[in-house]
Amino acid sequence: RASVGDDEDTFKILIATDIHLGYMEKDAVRGNDTFNTFQEIMKCAKEKEVDFVLLGGDLFHENKPTRKALHSCIEVIRQHCMGNKPVTFQILSDQAVNFSNSKFPWVNYQDENLNISIPIFSVHGNHDDPTGVDGLCALDVLSVAGLLNHFGRSQSVERVEISPLLLQKGNTRIALYGIGSIPDERLYRMFINNQVSMLRPLEHDSDWFNMFVIHQNRSKHGATNYIPEKFLSDFLDLVVWGHEHECRIVPERNEQQLFYITQPGSTVVTSLSPGEAIKKHIGLLRVKGRKMQLQKIPLQSVRPLYIEDICLSELSHLFTPDQPMVNQKIQAYCQEKVEEMLDEAQRQRLGSPQTPDKPLIRLRVDYSGGFEVFNSMRFSQRFVERVANPKDILHFLRHKETKDGVKDHMDFDALLSRPSSDVLTLRVEDLVKEYFQTAEKVLSLLTEQAMGKAVQEFVDKEEKDAIEELIKYQLEKTQRHLREKHTEPTEERIDEEIQRFRESKKNSVEEDEELREAISRAQAHRIQGQSRSAREDELDLSDEPSDIAMESDDDYKAPATRGRGSRGRVKFFCSGIAQSEQRSTTRGPKKPPLQSPVKTRNIMDGEPYTSYT
Amino acid sequence: RASVGDDEDTFKILIATDIHLGYMEKDAVRGNDTFNTFQEIMKCAKEKEVDFVLLGGDLFHENKPTRKALHSCIEVIRQHCMGNKPVTFQILSDQAVNFSNSKFPWVNYQDENLNISIPIFSVHGNHDDPTGVDGLCALDVLSVAGLLNHFGRSQSVERVEISPLLLQKGNTRIALYGIGSIPDERLYRMFINNQVSMLRPLEHDSDWFNMFVIHQNRSKHGATNYIPEKFLSDFLDLVVWGHEHECRIVPERNEQQLFYITQPGSTVVTSLSPGEAIKKHIGLLRVKGRKMQLQKIPLQSVRPLYIEDICLSELSHLFTPDQPMVNQKIQAYCQEKVEEMLDEAQRQRLGSPQTPDKPLIRLRVDYSGGFEVFNSMRFSQRFVERVANPKDILHFLRHKETKDGVKDHMDFDALLSRPSSDVLTLRVEDLVKEYFQTAEKVLSLLTEQAMGKAVQEFVDKEEKDAIEELIKYQLEKTQRHLREKHTEPTEERIDEEIQRFRESKKNSVEEDEELREAISRAQAHRIQGQSRSAREDELDLSDEPSDIAMESDDDYKAPATRGRGSRGRVKFFCSGIAQSEQRSTTRGPKKPPLQSPVKTRNIMDGEPYTSYT
Repeated sequence: RASVGDDEDTFKILIATDIHLGYMEKDAVRGNDTFNTFQEIMKCAKEKEVDFVLLGGDLFHENKPTRKALHSCIEVIRQHCMGNKPVTFQILSDQAVNFSNSKFPWVNYQDENLNISIPIFSVHGNHDDPTGVDGLCALDVLSVAGLLNHFGRSQSVERVEISPLLLQKGNTRIALYGIGSIPDERLYRMFINNQVSMLRPLEHDSDWFNMFVIHQNRSKHGATNYIPEKFLSDFLDLVVWGHEHECRIVPERNEQQLFYITQPGSTVVTSLSPGEAIKKHIGLLRVKGRKMQLQKIPLQSVRPLYIEDICLSELSHLFTPDQPMVNQKIQAYCQEKVEEMLDEAQRQRLGSPQTPDKPLIRLRVDYSGGFEVFNSMRFSQRFVERVANPKDILHFLRHKETKDGVKDHMDFDALLSRPSSDVLTLRVEDLVKEYFQTAEKVLSLLTEQAMGKAVQEFVDKEEKDAIEELIKYQLEKTQRHLREKHTEPTEERIDEEIQRFRESKKNSVEEDEELREAISRAQAHRIQGQSRSAREDELDLSDEPSDIAMESDDDYKAPATRGRGSRGRVKFFCSGIAQSEQRSTTRGPKKPPLQSPVKTRNIMDGEPYTSYT
Repeated sequence: RASVGDDEDTFKILIATDIHLGYMEKDAVRGNDTFNTFQEIMKCAKEKEVDFVLLGGDLFHENKPTRKALHSCIEVIRQHCMGNKPVTFQILSDQAVNFSNSKFPWVNYQDENLNISIPIFSVHGNHDDPTGVDGLCALDVLSVAGLLNHFGRSQSVERVEISPLLLQKGNTRIALYGIGSIPDERLYRMFINNQVSMLRPLEHDSDWFNMFVIHQNRSKHGATNYIPEKFLSDFLDLVVWGHEHECRIVPERNEQQLFYITQPGSTVVTSLSPGEAIKKHIGLLRVKGRKMQLQKIPLQSVRPLYIEDICLSELSHLFTPDQPMVNQKIQAYCQEKVEEMLDEAQRQRLGSPQTPDKPLIRLRVDYSGGFEVFNSMRFSQRFVERVANPKDILHFLRHKETKDGVKDHMDFDALLSRPSSDVLTLRVEDLVKEYFQTAEKVLSLLTEQAMGKAVQEFVDKEEKDAIEELIKYQLEKTQRHLREKHTEPTEERIDEEIQRFRESKKNSVEEDEELREAISRAQAHRIQGQSRSAREDELDLSDEPSDIAMESDDDYKAPATRGRGSRGRVKFFCSGIAQSEQRSTTRGPKKPPLQSPVKTRNIMDGEPYTSYT
């Protein structure tokens, strides 16, 4: 740890992702959670005097944030990221390239009209991605106001060329690569087709600490619906992985690629799944030379989730399905479990006044084996004052009924309930999924009118995610239909069957009803579906800041030969990027604010970077 | 003119209103009009080196502006209002009061983290008014980002107390009063009930140039649905009247109240009515001591509207209803008229490359007297490439058929077609209108479900205005219904009738259809309704900047006794506002950035204002 201290050669970077500003903002209890946590994060950045904040996408929950979300966000940034603290690192890359999408294509802290103390860099996520004819995203409203530096946008849907931000502080050089959210299948395909290239500086090629920020599925949701770690190039030192909500912030080493991955996880619970029950953290990353150290910082303001599973059939000493009053007994038992979780929540909250007093509670009850569900609304009633999610404390499921072992390739249900399963043959699922890749095809199952309505409704509520859910539901439905028909899964057959299936539905009054059913089922699937088992993968969850120091890791310090060639499906260019420090830009009448003596506050002395070409 | 030059005692203020950013932004032809004009306005502010920009509301067309509207707006402000030009006036009033709604309750140019060269001050309009639980409006997103100073917000719905911004430049003092849009009926009532008070500084009471910015109906839309000029207090020197779209920017003297009114008018045509055909201007106001001068500046980027009326029955030498081929002849005649307007547009556009090439064209055809309408779609087809509004060039009406003279008080149709008529007894209309004042009552006519749907739909499109249209439509419908029933217009009777009327509608399938009809009819009404006759009220429309100098106007220089007492229904307080120049605020941990030597750039020397208490 000694060698990565706070000196003039050490970058201090606050890392966070998936803040989801505005999530549940209308909720009376949880409405301000995301804003409070963003405040905590930025306050921390200020207190730790970091050089910059790096966000991994989904700063906003909604593609079109409300006025309140936007207002709160701007307030927090203006409060914590402006001021007289000097910014002591420089940008060596061509900012007109890094920020080519911006109307003010330079980093905000070098703008002479803004007194930025902590610049924020962010890629966009799938929630706040660019849409519409003008291709703007929510982050662009912040970036045009000079409050945030949005990078990692790519123009083409066929190929991606990532030109890194080249940052220098003292003798430390960071090449910061980023790529905003792209539909997983599309990016997967681009990787496979060698259409993802990462430009690398020619000079000092072995001196750069290479970071990469990505916002994609990391866990496998179907054959091509994620980005395998092995796709990422081995010249990288650290990958910051956004999008996945489970906190796995302690860098994990990928032994094939010889890089580390930190997955900070979301800073708000957006689904009542085990992954989200893991304590939320942000990270303080120190980089000196090619050494790094990541300190995990627990967040106090996050509303905690407590989750527990009961399998009734495994409690045969307590209940049997045909017992008299069995439902009352089960309810009493469940109540006791919830009380235990509430007690635990109370204990954990001691000494953390910032932590919201009402936790999120989820009790998953596996009632397979002949048991019956009971009225969960009435059950929840007694916890209304103590739980933040009284409406959905209980979740009934029949988990254990799927068969084990090798599956028949037509067993769609089993496939769907295990999105991450890896040994199964996924041919059918993939085929149908492929089929649904285009929006047109999604619409083919139901009449355009009904679907249009539903989609609009979803868009208004949960935007992107909801549409994904809908697609998943359509997928499932089609699969089931095809299974019932015992169709051989060829694309032609699928097409035919869907046509028939749809015709039979056309103008039916139940269509609306069915769609509503689809929503709740799809949501249930989602909550249940993000099924990384908490038991298996649990990390060290101690609330104390824990450090990981890697300064003496020889494997970690990459040899100079690494990253030269292409490996796997990734193509590299070795190419000069920045021409000179005092490069002229093509901004036309706007005067370039770079290197202005008043505002850039580059206190670097010593060697000029003119040799960097 | 000589005595109001550009010196250290002269305020230079750019005045504009109703910019309606985002109006028709999805339209392929007109989509960028509002953004271009905002750019022109702010560019002008920069070129003229004004001290500040004063906006009269409706900067945004929509209550929830799109990302694009917000983005464009921020871009323009950041481009033109930031920089090193010093701001040379001071604010003497308590900013924590003036900007009490802001998270950063001080003027943006005194914020040490923002380098503002031209501060913008604005009240909100009815389009961008505060809504929702958090009471935020679109302007607040700009103000929290430090891009605009939003003033004139009042908290109470029962009374308004306006505490002015007290501005000083050299020896000139301006007391700037403002009030953001309030429903006209409500503000009318407050005036009537003596619930509107305007605080006045005790010191230098006769030295202040008193300005008031208001965003309300100026023309009478029903008995209490506007603000009579006589309600405004006579101590005022200049009223800047927003909301009304017709340009009447040349100050008009109110001989009773002894103040002047400037009505800049909108900077975009939002309805194809004669008032909007008048050339659009903004104003450069100079104030020195208590003298003012207003220079009108024609806008080049505004898409012009050309409007013409034809009354077929007055063209009996050309057409008679029973003539063979009469429709073809009329069409040819109309086509000729449109061509003439297009020629005129072309002529006017010479030398104004900024002016959009496709004008707005409206030909109003009065077909009363037995003529028939013809297919206006086919007619418009030939102008698609030359006109910005090919879909609604023609407007058929039967204007002259309403009777003249004293009306029966049940003649609702006539009342509705003449919203500004002033001699009629408006008792019934007012009663019914009153009835519809609350949202609840609006919903009473149709089933909640159907209405809810419709309202949502309108909200998505045109927000506030659309809802107003809907209310108007409901009003009309109820009036007609009551008339048909020959109901005596008492509130009880209205209630009963509506109840019956509604029951008969309940669950009827036509309800949806009817609502759609309502929309188009309401829109048609609107376009036709804003009926200030261009012929009567036409101003000097010369495009040359024209000055009005009033420096020698003795009446205008108000005697010291003016404005002491209350006049009409307005109540005044004489009360000290600012306690001292270096007042401490209650902002807590945030450091007050006032009077910071670096950023406030108050170059005033000489007397300190500590004597101002």
